[in-house]
Amino acid sequence: VTPRSGLTLGMDLGGTRVKAGAVSPDGAIVARRVEAVGDVRDEEAIVARLAGLAAALDPGGAAPIGVAAAGVVDQREGTLRQSPNFPSWRDFALAARLAAATGRRVTLENDANAVIFGEVIAGAGRGERCVFGYTLGTGVGGAIVLDGELWRGSRGMAGELGHVTVVRGPDARPCGCGNRGCLEQYAGAVGLRATLAGSGRPLADLAGDPDAPARLARLAEQGDERALAIYADLGVHLGVAAAAMVHALDVTTIILAGGIAYAAGLFVPAMEAEIRARTFVSMSEGLSVRAGTLGEDAGIVGAAMAASSGDATLHREG
Amino acid sequence: VTPRSGLTLGMDLGGTRVKAGAVSPDGAIVARRVEAVGDVRDEEAIVARLAGLAAALDPGGAAPIGVAAAGVVDQREGTLRQSPNFPSWRDFALAARLAAATGRRVTLENDANAVIFGEVIAGAGRGERCVFGYTLGTGVGGAIVLDGELWRGSRGMAGELGHVTVVRGPDARPCGCGNRGCLEQYAGAVGLRATLAGSGRPLADLAGDPDAPARLARLAEQGDERALAIYADLGVHLGVAAAAMVHALDVTTIILAGGIAYAAGLFVPAMEAEIRARTFVSMSEGLSVRAGTLGEDAGIVGAAMAASSGDATLHREG
Repeated sequence: VTPRSGLTLGMDLGGTRVKAGAVSPDGAIVARRVEAVGDVRDEEAIVARLAGLAAALDPGGAAPIGVAAAGVVDQREGTLRQSPNFPSWRDFALAARLAAATGRRVTLENDANAVIFGEVIAGAGRGERCVFGYTLGTGVGGAIVLDGELWRGSRGMAGELGHVTVVRGPDARPCGCGNRGCLEQYAGAVGLRATLAGSGRPLADLAGDPDAPARLARLAEQGDERALAIYADLGVHLGVAAAAMVHALDVTTIILAGGIAYAAGLFVPAMEAEIRARTFVSMSEGLSVRAGTLGEDAGIVGAAMAASSGDATLHREG
Repeated sequence: VTPRSGLTLGMDLGGTRVKAGAVSPDGAIVARRVEAVGDVRDEEAIVARLAGLAAALDPGGAAPIGVAAAGVVDQREGTLRQSPNFPSWRDFALAARLAAATGRRVTLENDANAVIFGEVIAGAGRGERCVFGYTLGTGVGGAIVLDGELWRGSRGMAGELGHVTVVRGPDARPCGCGNRGCLEQYAGAVGLRATLAGSGRPLADLAGDPDAPARLARLAEQGDERALAIYADLGVHLGVAAAAMVHALDVTTIILAGGIAYAAGLFVPAMEAEIRARTFVSMSEGLSVRAGTLGEDAGIVGAAMAASSGDATLHREG
């Protein structure tokens, strides 16, 4: 079966919504749909929902599907080993099940990998071949693109950049992973709230606000010095972690995606200064830190592009 | 010209000696020579010396040559951009010059890359495809092997694992690179000396001893608790840095090479414990930390193997 007109379907499967799109070979979304996920325990209903989205976006066609989901993904097997959004699923063969339901080729990708790959193909990293990126949401994820391809690791677990230690010692914040001092505890929304909670009033009052990152950003943009300092501190921690990756990987580009990235102007200068202070001039010169440009579309585009790239393992029907 | 009997010549070009060998396709050294480098400013004499070694190891043959040297290597161009051992050289086209002098194909590799690649092909990492390693000498170098190939970075500078920050704050030791708190200041011979100097007598008296790492290792092996604690501390710092790389790269194997690696038994347990504490179980289980087995031969073997591997850029005569 040949995909019609070169389209690939990208599906960003979250815990509450699935965002789907038909993506052209250059990474443009030419049609889109968003639906509620429904009961996260009901594998069968979710596979049927994804199949329905494919039929709606590409009626009668055979465009392959790329699905992105949070958690530990075995990309070669097309299984979701475990996922924070679907806690009852274990080693769920999502790609094979969706291939059987649709007659289409299906590939599965980790969501942070999809977001950063999408930005590399069609967004802030277009044209770059050596990139790593952070997804700054509630927590911090990451992904690595080397020579134009996602580096997924020996077991599909590479790119866990949010759990790199950036603070040691007794004051290091505990992390849900069991470690202390992880980047995620300083540079995601969770980290920002912890910094706020420890910062005295009136800012400490923001810590419990679900909209804290955006409200803090507004304060910073209005010139509030403590708000500015909190975002700069977030940038410093990101810079410490990023410098280690620059030393290891010698990339040309660092991409910042996810919910907090819209405030990049408030923390990228401190991040860049920290990278410069910690790396050789020959490494930091020519290195570019960029906020993602695809926003919420990045996962759709990246899931589709990973499915259509040469190194993806596509599962066929049956 | 077809290389005779599949041999490749590996040359480990240091600041005082050049170690050379004829290496079989499976990484065994079948003939070897060591010579003094001579005047490090005299490019011409050094190229002639390497050409002479090639003629001695493979008389009348056309075996290709792989050269390993410390410093910033542009592997694609075959140039040594700068090197601590040859401070007067800048962008020296060593591969092209040696190709012209010998009529052989020549490739140039960073020395830490060669050492770790040698261990992956024929030593402690044989059969592994996703590996990073540290070279623990005076300083700390590193290299990354992904899917069986060296990852050299966008500009040939990847694998600078010794300059990853492991200590922050006012007590972080200054590093020659301009940064503070680099792994190299805690886990190389220089780092060990700094720890000794700050540790009170009688151990502090060892700090100035050129043989300090070995003498400290003997004390530790005899059960000296402070010597044991100093080596364990070195392992903890290595573990902090290694955990970040495990999160990023999801490798199966970590290799420790270089002068201090012979004492691996004294610091690997602390290093492994630190990695386990800082990474997910799914990442640390199945991860193996191994001391190199090729010793001083690793650079020769790795230089030769990098030259004969598919992704090397070989410079032809003329």
